[in-house]
Amino acid sequence: MTKKASSESKDQRRLQMADIARLAGVSTSTVSRALSKSPLIGEETRQRIEALAKSLNYSINVGAQNLRLKQNKTVAVVVPFDTASHQHLSDPFFLGIIGSIADALTERGYDMLLTRVSAEELDAAAQIYDTGRAIGVILIGQWRHHDQLNQMAARKVPIVVWGAQIPQQLYVTVGSDNVAGGRLACQHLIDAGKKRIAFFGDTQLPEVAHRYQGYCQALQAAGMAVDPNLVLSAAFTEEGGRWAVETLLSRGVTFDAVFACSDLLAMTAINLFRASGLAVPQDVAVVGYDDIALARYFHPPLSTIRQPIAAAGEALVSAVLALSEQNTTGPQLLETTLVARQSS
Amino acid sequence: MTKKASSESKDQRRLQMADIARLAGVSTSTVSRALSKSPLIGEETRQRIEALAKSLNYSINVGAQNLRLKQNKTVAVVVPFDTASHQHLSDPFFLGIIGSIADALTERGYDMLLTRVSAEELDAAAQIYDTGRAIGVILIGQWRHHDQLNQMAARKVPIVVWGAQIPQQLYVTVGSDNVAGGRLACQHLIDAGKKRIAFFGDTQLPEVAHRYQGYCQALQAAGMAVDPNLVLSAAFTEEGGRWAVETLLSRGVTFDAVFACSDLLAMTAINLFRASGLAVPQDVAVVGYDDIALARYFHPPLSTIRQPIAAAGEALVSAVLALSEQNTTGPQLLETTLVARQSS
Repeated sequence: MTKKASSESKDQRRLQMADIARLAGVSTSTVSRALSKSPLIGEETRQRIEALAKSLNYSINVGAQNLRLKQNKTVAVVVPFDTASHQHLSDPFFLGIIGSIADALTERGYDMLLTRVSAEELDAAAQIYDTGRAIGVILIGQWRHHDQLNQMAARKVPIVVWGAQIPQQLYVTVGSDNVAGGRLACQHLIDAGKKRIAFFGDTQLPEVAHRYQGYCQALQAAGMAVDPNLVLSAAFTEEGGRWAVETLLSRGVTFDAVFACSDLLAMTAINLFRASGLAVPQDVAVVGYDDIALARYFHPPLSTIRQPIAAAGEALVSAVLALSEQNTTGPQLLETTLVARQSS
Repeated sequence: MTKKASSESKDQRRLQMADIARLAGVSTSTVSRALSKSPLIGEETRQRIEALAKSLNYSINVGAQNLRLKQNKTVAVVVPFDTASHQHLSDPFFLGIIGSIADALTERGYDMLLTRVSAEELDAAAQIYDTGRAIGVILIGQWRHHDQLNQMAARKVPIVVWGAQIPQQLYVTVGSDNVAGGRLACQHLIDAGKKRIAFFGDTQLPEVAHRYQGYCQALQAAGMAVDPNLVLSAAFTEEGGRWAVETLLSRGVTFDAVFACSDLLAMTAINLFRASGLAVPQDVAVVGYDDIALARYFHPPLSTIRQPIAAAGEALVSAVLALSEQNTTGPQLLETTLVARQSS
């Protein structure tokens, strides 16, 4: 037997532990225990697994359980959708993150399994790993599902979440520094002499809650009070932006600036302000969030908080690969920066 | 035994034919033949396979070979990259198409395996199907690889290409009507009284070649000659747009309009014209192509040719699923429409 053939047959043997597990309808750890005659495994199961192993001429190989997974070069990227709105995958920021993850995976020779699951059934994300279709999961957007994510992390699903780091978090997050981002945006508007700064964003979302925290910090540092009349819980959609502008105008309160928690919200707001006869930035200055590719092409070119999209793809991929190799990795906070253009 | 349990165990048994094949290191057809005692299979192999099958309590199920693939609910989406430029996945139009395919797959309960391959090694796209990782392949951008695509189609890889329909094509394409799109754009500029209309786009790409054909048709129908000085082979990048504008200006020829073959090219051109002191649309009118989500937010709001992105995702997914089920399907040409805004 040549050396090459011998090594191939060894690989084949290694693969079989996972195969036996699947054929016998048990976990690979049950197979491992049965073959090492662990008392944890019942006699009947042990005999069945041994017979299977014998028919395959199987020999025990330490760590074989994992080899199957290691040969899989696929990482799942899960984008939950809201069951009620069935929102389409059209947000330029999310599409940009997906593109950047695809680039980071391609550079490492990995493929991306892109899947959308209902935000109400986030466990479906773990199934992709459980069934061996991917070696780990990157989840884009933690929404309001902190507990489900913690459960997955507790049972060692290699999962990395794009989002905010929050207390009692067991899962690994990669996100940008949303508190600093909110503070930078609001501070910039204060520095421009604005006194009545509105906030557009849904603070039920952890990332937006952090941006709001930064907004409050900047106001307080300048000795300015937070006025609830200026805080609008706008969804990340065009309709959300329209609702926020109309509600703000209908309240009859004075305002001279808006910090909008996405560029799309900011652009929608600017177009509507202009349609209402308000000049941007003279009557109302606007700062967005994300710095999507087209923010600088906007009219007026949009001031915004940049989230480092390319670095985000790199960091998410590095973290999920580390977890899939049983290495530990902590949450990562990427730097956000102010990009001042002409809308403020 | 309840009805549900019985049907589950049947499914489990069906799956095992493919599993036995892999464990025994033979094809599923060898397994099938061995179990039906075909004389084509040697005695030793037959015994080995029977022993395996017995240990699994396996019973023959006609068509079991294919069930495995049919249970796979994954479609591959391949985005070739140019080996020289290693261009990142950041083009808003391509990202929009990917999002729309993801939506169409999600609605049908399928996942997307997103992978990038070198445009020089397009055969890697077929391997994803050959190895059973996906039931079919959607390729975004046919580039200049007509022959490789024909070879894949000839050996029955279920592959659908987003791109132009061209002569001697064996593969199925879904694309928008690029000839009509080019004609609409140019006709619109002629109707606006423009006499010297430049063309920005790389006519080596089949889709751009069709847009150029439409541009020439509209000029000829109006009795206007095509001036090679006004035709610039610009790549679909910001650098391509910059090169085209600088080259056009350096030629010292007169021009009063540009038809740019992507919105990004058009936006880059408009910003550079403005920086050179030319007013858009007064001095130079510009029409783009694609109608990406942000075209209407641009300053001035961009006139463009709309490619129907949501319909494109639907059509690509329907076609690849039809092919994967051995149904025939022909090329599809989606309608393009002029969206006249303020840049022309």
